[in-house]
Amino acid sequence: MRDTPATPEPDTTPEADAPAAPAPLGDGELAALDAHWRAANYLSVGQIYLLANPLLTEPLRPEHIKPRLLGHWGTSPGLNLVHTHLNRVIKARDLDTVCVWGPGHGGPAVLANSWLDGSYGETYPDVGRDEAGMARLFRQFSFPGGVPSHVAPETPGSIHEGGELGYSLSHAYGAAFDNPDLLAVCVIGDGEAETGPLAGSWHANKFLDPVHDGAVLPVLHLNGYKIANPTVLARLPDDELDAYLRGCGHEPLTVAGDDPAAVHRALAAALDVALDRIEAIHRAARTRDRAADGPHRPRWPMIVLRTPKGWTGPREVDGQPVENTWRAHQVPLPGVRENPDHLRQLAEWMRSYRPDELFGPDGAPRPQVLAQVPRGPRRLGANPHANGGLLLRELPLPPLEPYAAEVDPVRPGATSHEPTRALGALLARLMADTAERRDFRVVGPDETESNRLDAVYEASGKAWQDRLLDTDEHLDRHGRVMETLSEHTCQGWLEGYLLTGRHGLFSCYEAFAHIVDSMVNQHVKWLRVTRELPWRRPVASLNYLLTSHVWRQDHNGFSHQDPGFVDHVLNKAPEVVRVYLPPDANSLLCVADRVLRSRDRVNVVVAGKQPCFDWLTLEQARAHCARGAGIWEWAGTEDGTGEPDVVLAAAGDVPTREVLAAVTLLREHLPELSVRVVNVVDLSRLQPREEHPDGMPDAEYDALFTADRPVIFAYHGYPWLIHRLAYRRTGHAKLHVRGYKEYGTTTTPFDMLVRNDLDRYRLVMDVVDRVPGLAVRAGAVRQRMEDVRLRHHDWVRAHGDDLPEVTDWHWTPPGGDGADTASDGAA
Amino acid sequence: MRDTPATPEPDTTPEADAPAAPAPLGDGELAALDAHWRAANYLSVGQIYLLANPLLTEPLRPEHIKPRLLGHWGTSPGLNLVHTHLNRVIKARDLDTVCVWGPGHGGPAVLANSWLDGSYGETYPDVGRDEAGMARLFRQFSFPGGVPSHVAPETPGSIHEGGELGYSLSHAYGAAFDNPDLLAVCVIGDGEAETGPLAGSWHANKFLDPVHDGAVLPVLHLNGYKIANPTVLARLPDDELDAYLRGCGHEPLTVAGDDPAAVHRALAAALDVALDRIEAIHRAARTRDRAADGPHRPRWPMIVLRTPKGWTGPREVDGQPVENTWRAHQVPLPGVRENPDHLRQLAEWMRSYRPDELFGPDGAPRPQVLAQVPRGPRRLGANPHANGGLLLRELPLPPLEPYAAEVDPVRPGATSHEPTRALGALLARLMADTAERRDFRVVGPDETESNRLDAVYEASGKAWQDRLLDTDEHLDRHGRVMETLSEHTCQGWLEGYLLTGRHGLFSCYEAFAHIVDSMVNQHVKWLRVTRELPWRRPVASLNYLLTSHVWRQDHNGFSHQDPGFVDHVLNKAPEVVRVYLPPDANSLLCVADRVLRSRDRVNVVVAGKQPCFDWLTLEQARAHCARGAGIWEWAGTEDGTGEPDVVLAAAGDVPTREVLAAVTLLREHLPELSVRVVNVVDLSRLQPREEHPDGMPDAEYDALFTADRPVIFAYHGYPWLIHRLAYRRTGHAKLHVRGYKEYGTTTTPFDMLVRNDLDRYRLVMDVVDRVPGLAVRAGAVRQRMEDVRLRHHDWVRAHGDDLPEVTDWHWTPPGGDGADTASDGAA
Repeated sequence: MRDTPATPEPDTTPEADAPAAPAPLGDGELAALDAHWRAANYLSVGQIYLLANPLLTEPLRPEHIKPRLLGHWGTSPGLNLVHTHLNRVIKARDLDTVCVWGPGHGGPAVLANSWLDGSYGETYPDVGRDEAGMARLFRQFSFPGGVPSHVAPETPGSIHEGGELGYSLSHAYGAAFDNPDLLAVCVIGDGEAETGPLAGSWHANKFLDPVHDGAVLPVLHLNGYKIANPTVLARLPDDELDAYLRGCGHEPLTVAGDDPAAVHRALAAALDVALDRIEAIHRAARTRDRAADGPHRPRWPMIVLRTPKGWTGPREVDGQPVENTWRAHQVPLPGVRENPDHLRQLAEWMRSYRPDELFGPDGAPRPQVLAQVPRGPRRLGANPHANGGLLLRELPLPPLEPYAAEVDPVRPGATSHEPTRALGALLARLMADTAERRDFRVVGPDETESNRLDAVYEASGKAWQDRLLDTDEHLDRHGRVMETLSEHTCQGWLEGYLLTGRHGLFSCYEAFAHIVDSMVNQHVKWLRVTRELPWRRPVASLNYLLTSHVWRQDHNGFSHQDPGFVDHVLNKAPEVVRVYLPPDANSLLCVADRVLRSRDRVNVVVAGKQPCFDWLTLEQARAHCARGAGIWEWAGTEDGTGEPDVVLAAAGDVPTREVLAAVTLLREHLPELSVRVVNVVDLSRLQPREEHPDGMPDAEYDALFTADRPVIFAYHGYPWLIHRLAYRRTGHAKLHVRGYKEYGTTTTPFDMLVRNDLDRYRLVMDVVDRVPGLAVRAGAVRQRMEDVRLRHHDWVRAHGDDLPEVTDWHWTPPGGDGADTASDGAA
Repeated sequence: MRDTPATPEPDTTPEADAPAAPAPLGDGELAALDAHWRAANYLSVGQIYLLANPLLTEPLRPEHIKPRLLGHWGTSPGLNLVHTHLNRVIKARDLDTVCVWGPGHGGPAVLANSWLDGSYGETYPDVGRDEAGMARLFRQFSFPGGVPSHVAPETPGSIHEGGELGYSLSHAYGAAFDNPDLLAVCVIGDGEAETGPLAGSWHANKFLDPVHDGAVLPVLHLNGYKIANPTVLARLPDDELDAYLRGCGHEPLTVAGDDPAAVHRALAAALDVALDRIEAIHRAARTRDRAADGPHRPRWPMIVLRTPKGWTGPREVDGQPVENTWRAHQVPLPGVRENPDHLRQLAEWMRSYRPDELFGPDGAPRPQVLAQVPRGPRRLGANPHANGGLLLRELPLPPLEPYAAEVDPVRPGATSHEPTRALGALLARLMADTAERRDFRVVGPDETESNRLDAVYEASGKAWQDRLLDTDEHLDRHGRVMETLSEHTCQGWLEGYLLTGRHGLFSCYEAFAHIVDSMVNQHVKWLRVTRELPWRRPVASLNYLLTSHVWRQDHNGFSHQDPGFVDHVLNKAPEVVRVYLPPDANSLLCVADRVLRSRDRVNVVVAGKQPCFDWLTLEQARAHCARGAGIWEWAGTEDGTGEPDVVLAAAGDVPTREVLAAVTLLREHLPELSVRVVNVVDLSRLQPREEHPDGMPDAEYDALFTADRPVIFAYHGYPWLIHRLAYRRTGHAKLHVRGYKEYGTTTTPFDMLVRNDLDRYRLVMDVVDRVPGLAVRAGAVRQRMEDVRLRHHDWVRAHGDDLPEVTDWHWTPPGGDGADTASDGAA
């Protein structure tokens, strides 16, 4: 291509204080940058190919070559170039910088740079900056017992894997939020730029506060190809690309070419312009009032870097063009062990970097190579923000008492609260108490209010940098409640925020948490690996509050009914994942307190926003949530001698209510029956201890559920999940689970329970069907239950609402005032 | 706001043949359009509020109001406006048009329009265009036994739900592909526009062939608000919004305002300009050669429609502004039954549409209202493309023989093939055989070649409308292989393509299928409901080929390991979902043939791309796949009398190989053991028949797996899935499943099996541990297996590849030539 590199455009926007044009790169600087770049390229190739002979002190022979050639060369020279130049500006400007490497599959590049800046050897002392260390660096790459071929938790300085594409930019924003002095550079590959999540996250700049947040500098790297195709953005006409990026709110600075010296000069200049511009934006924002009527959101600079894929690699292999084509994506020279021609080509390629100029005979990088490399924690491989646990502070969690529902322990269920509203008040306090330190955020796809957490707005508005209207409410230039209608962006923001050492909560409609299934996969994998890396300090957990859940989708119906996120999460590493189903407001508070204190986990909390009976005092809730599952003696009818006739178990707020309603029906109709009520908050407790660290020992499980009595389990989600968790338990053959199945229907809430056989009447029928030796009249009871259900069907279709005996039901304690009989209008 | 509506910009791009400026709207037309719009608005409000008194013939009283007020008003007037104007141009130009309503939660609007054009009454005869029909239309809306509040499968003319946001535009493109005369209008809400999938799908126009595809006309509806927040795009400065949309490759035509007459005029003019422009693009493309060096992709028109949220609804309620704020999103007047003030306000609101002018005393719409409504299948509610099964043709599936691997039935496993490569050849033939009819497409996120399906390029290149370079391969202006690095866009395209009556296949890396978890949810729900609607004709199934699967991620490691898409899909409606794990190339061909013939399903096929032993002849594979699970007599060591000592079962290609290798080890070391080998292709067969229509009866299950012998099941994915499917089976307590768990590791393929305890040696150990009464020397066999595994650990770390006895293993038939002993180098 040999384009003339474009001169970065002058900065003409009004907010810039016309900084002096940056000085051009001196020849010495250029030589040092180029040496560093060549060194990084050399080390990248070495990782992909070499088992031994790292400095090419001997002629390259087949036995020096790895038997399986794995890795991605194509993106590596571009990443090396960016890293080299970031070193320069970090050092020159003493910048606090993290870099998110979107093309994380270019692991060799980031590893090479970390080795060069010394952070690798400090993290892994046997891979230091000498020949032996270089040999280990090469050998370990994508090798059994070694390191992954992608940027990974094992890579110093990384907070982003880059295996599954689309999340780099939202991660960078997450890192920048509430880090006013941090520069978060984000290299975006043109492949990744095609993904939906990345495309949506360009607009994250509408939420970046130039006063309290740091800067994000996107570097869109157009090397032209993805795996086997050209990329969309690289082939756009220049005017369209420019319009697109300006439409995304950026001032693009373009650097293009394939002549190294020219590209070095242009990239250095572009970085200087961009960083001057960022400085000017920050200065302007931080020295004047940016209140509601302040000036418009700044147009942040970004860099478009157009260089060849596989730049400096083999131009042709076996007569096919490779450099600057998709063929450079992975291993451009295959079969090097077997093919002497390819072996020769590899040796030429590696020698083209002139390794003798780059490394001393001991393998150490020569001073020129390191001349532009910053020191200590300024190095990208050593910045503490990329090992966020180092910076993590305990959250100032308030006592729960002021937010708790007042519950008379002898009259459970006498009052109701909306659980998420109670939580909202707690979160408001937490938001207020972190107003100075700014290390807690709430994210969600425009559902905070719908999910009844809107009390948080008392303490912090919603982040918003665009135009404000008189009718707006709760929008705030400096808000820490993040709402954008993209679950992907919400998730990416929060991941980036947590991995850089802060805290947060993601509230989401239950059904649409599936939108981020694949993102949570990657985050769990990340945490799973960091738990084995002692140098990675624990970070705050990723906490989901799933609400507007499957059993209350009155407006929205079938498309909004999906309780499967829990199933998805429970497939992942058990050390990391936890799922909580608090049955009422007080237990939600206790669970929230628990998950916000936890570390290195993904916690899923499912809780309703609709009014829910208060079953437990705060003290009871605390104990119950600490155990994760327990017998609710007050709700059962056991006499304390021997095993009950049946166990009614529940997990979830609606199932808990149905189970308790079933108990009142059983008390009325089959008073001789001994019923135990078990409530499960923490699903992992159902698993065997050998499968999950929180799993109950078998003895404890049997003590709760009995070894041989029928268990009717009312579960919030897909019923087979409970079987999958409990299949090894002794009493499993007698476990009968009711839950949600995929019936499309528009209906009233209770009708949905009936359609799914999770209603109180069906649970009573289950008891009748499964408890042996019941009185003869049990058959009549069963028939009465069936009759109510049929009556219910007609009633809701005539009146548009549930039967009064359902909507008016409330818990009555056993031996109460005779109000029991009110619970079944069929009497 | 009262903006002056912008005049649509003149069409200045070179490809337009300077069409004459469209004639302005006549007063009569305007009056008719406005009457239709008011009628649709009236009907929308009626659906949300009224149980009775639809024509307001009596004063509105509380008992006329629904007890639960559900629905979304905010978007409805905008949708009604667009529908009204589409009617006009469809009728005037005799257009074949479908419309995708991105804000599908505005169900009242689309239902109102379908009722007005008569398609509703034709589909549901009791909801016709008279007073009784109107009463039913109102009552049924979001009412028990009625219809969902969203656009849904029940809605005539719809192919898109709009509950989960983000997919409207990719659906519209899917509808337009290979429908050269179809106009696919797509209304995109400004809330939806924030999602990643929508943001990524703007670039779909880079793949739209103006010769063979129809047109997509996006209508970006900026009503300013999502649930409780302003939207990003609505608050952008005009220059940024314009740049963004031009950067997305569109020529935006802006219509803005809140004066109905002015907006009617401007929208009519903009639609005329846009449709003239589309016609010119088509004419230009179709009358000249658009070969590889043809002119650049056209810049397609689009419309930006900026009107108030909840337009024409209550301006204020209880002193709070409602119209043109987020408060108009759902039910702007709450508590109408209880609050006489709100009741009065509702009556005023409804009467503001002047219903007497719109409907006769019998409830039928007056002629003026219907003056601009098209007839017959041109109506948006009756277009056959939106009921794609009407247009579906059988695929010309070729015979499988030419693509099958040659397998000697007495020497299974003697050869190997890459299963996906074999499939690729079949797909190439299918692609060639549909070259004229153009009703089959293959989609994937740039992985067709990586997944070894590249033979398809012989028959069709990859769709690509942007710049071409000399080094490009297989790019084709008219290609039907769709590759873009967005799983979301791929999925959306294919859904739109299938729902409009065509066929397709989505090939994807297994781990990254999770990216579309939530989309497949919605598609399964759609199909689940359509199966209950006799007027919805069956459509071709959505077929996934998941490859580059969990057991071979040599380059990519842990981030690319996730077999959980299968688990996710199996949670959904059993009538719809099927999962197939063909064990070799021939069985993949048979499964592919099966899924491509099926209807109304989501089929997931998991198959490797790496060389795989050929176990079955084509005939055997056909029989095996038809049964879905069966005993492989040739592989077992039963003597035909009584039950075996142990059953070794497998599902998946790699597990099948490991089970067969375990059998050879058992034959050698424990020759007296009677082993049965069972192979499972169709996972749904494991479920009880009452849970899945393809589930095996218990007798069949027991005949395969026995009722009481130990079963060691080697499964491709998370092991507990098999338990969750089979927990009700008699022999479940003796079922032991090995599969994948989340251990992060970089390793050789076989080492991964060892890490996960799914390797042949571990399976032999399982047999020893579980079969009672084995010979004493079984303990020594167990130890030898453990020794090989330890030796393996050291070997791979030293050599970077698996043990030779693993890589060289091949199946030997029982009583063979003594080659058995070669299978365990430990001997």
